[in-house]
Amino acid sequence: MKIGIVGLGLIGGSLAHDLSRHHEITGVSRSSATVAEALSQGLIRQGGESLGLLKGCELVFVCTPIGLTLETIRALAAVLSPETVLTDVASVKAAIVPTAAALWPNFVGGHPMAGSEAQGLSAARAGLFRGRPYVLTPTPRTPAAACTTLEDLVGELGARLVRTDPETHDRAVARISHLPVFVGAALLLNLAASGDPTASTLASSGFFDTTRVGGGNPQLGTAMAEWNRAALLAELRSYRDHLGRLEQAIDAGDWQAVEQRLGECRKTRREVFEDGI
Amino acid sequence: MKIGIVGLGLIGGSLAHDLSRHHEITGVSRSSATVAEALSQGLIRQGGESLGLLKGCELVFVCTPIGLTLETIRALAAVLSPETVLTDVASVKAAIVPTAAALWPNFVGGHPMAGSEAQGLSAARAGLFRGRPYVLTPTPRTPAAACTTLEDLVGELGARLVRTDPETHDRAVARISHLPVFVGAALLLNLAASGDPTASTLASSGFFDTTRVGGGNPQLGTAMAEWNRAALLAELRSYRDHLGRLEQAIDAGDWQAVEQRLGECRKTRREVFEDGI
Repeated sequence: MKIGIVGLGLIGGSLAHDLSRHHEITGVSRSSATVAEALSQGLIRQGGESLGLLKGCELVFVCTPIGLTLETIRALAAVLSPETVLTDVASVKAAIVPTAAALWPNFVGGHPMAGSEAQGLSAARAGLFRGRPYVLTPTPRTPAAACTTLEDLVGELGARLVRTDPETHDRAVARISHLPVFVGAALLLNLAASGDPTASTLASSGFFDTTRVGGGNPQLGTAMAEWNRAALLAELRSYRDHLGRLEQAIDAGDWQAVEQRLGECRKTRREVFEDGI
Repeated sequence: MKIGIVGLGLIGGSLAHDLSRHHEITGVSRSSATVAEALSQGLIRQGGESLGLLKGCELVFVCTPIGLTLETIRALAAVLSPETVLTDVASVKAAIVPTAAALWPNFVGGHPMAGSEAQGLSAARAGLFRGRPYVLTPTPRTPAAACTTLEDLVGELGARLVRTDPETHDRAVARISHLPVFVGAALLLNLAASGDPTASTLASSGFFDTTRVGGGNPQLGTAMAEWNRAALLAELRSYRDHLGRLEQAIDAGDWQAVEQRLGECRKTRREVFEDGI
């Protein structure tokens, strides 16, 4: 299949790693150095800075930062032939899908749940999506053939296909992906404000893990908040209630209640990660 | 040296792994099966269920759960000869050190900052303390010779020696070890209360890492709260302020402020873990 990828960063580059083995990939990037690097690694057959290069593609992945997704789709709509399937990889869907589908009926919203702290083509690798959830958010009007084409590729990546609607997706990622960023960030702000050198010296694997996503890419965290603001704010409010109830139990010295709730936490985590991550 | 270890769990067992290479270890456990296992692995030279076995030891590590530390020291005080150095491994110090030092002048408070989610002798291993902080909290009245003896053993473990007072230690561990437990726990309670199956399906490495210590041993988390309550409550209050300010910035749509604070978080985390964990 002739596949186009716009944006050759961590996600776009990793898609190219996996899909270039059986498909002909055309890559578009704002950076000619990135295109040259992707060509030299054999990840793309041809590439450049112009979206016009994607004219003959049967399917195009838009892998730009979230803030550029809709304008990229708008520009592609002027270039592609109508039968081309268009999909994105943005980590929010409700703010993207209706507009994108209006611009391009053959659009299927997508979100591969894989990543790392690292960014850019140098961080891309084969197998990034293997075993990870890959969410598709078709609407009732999305053509079935477009879904099937994309689902086949998700299968080739070895990813776990999850189908849901944009709103359910956004609430879910607010809970398990966007909220943890800010929860971990506040731990780091709390440590920084304390100016406590002993605390910094003693920080070990527990603090390291709990703050990994909170200490990640600031642009990405901000984009999550900006594009999934309502769902994130709802989660921040309910999170605050749960933490407040733990605090009350500690303040009251109700150790039975504390231990019971921590027991529920362990049970929940074991259930969620029963089959690994 | 003749070394005694009371409690052959993760910490006591790991001390035996490392120290048995150059020292004669006597192990005491409430479980005869654990003693038998430690003997069969060659981790201890002799052992049993009675503290009286430790009579001839030059140094004794108390590696029981926190709640049994003081009563174990009280019982040892009736058995040991006065020159024996006594130390503990509890993760809180202000609630232990003054009482322990009154019971046994040759007591040095200790806290090796190493662990894992796993518990018990089967989780113990050689090298657990290598490169990790090992905190000692001598008081102005602690005999210098007792400190030197223990510091030499900390050196043999390959741990990083940190000396501080009990209160500074407790505030620091509240910030970087006890607070993250409850911050991560509230994420799990929030997910469980949502009953959102999509969120559980999509939970991946970010949620896994952020909730690792929050979904850990409930007894251990409760003991941290019980024994370090005042310091933990102070951290929960200031944490809540920092998270609230992030929430306000998101609510106000002040993306510049959000990105700036997330940038501080990344900087703080890089500084804290500059030399790894």
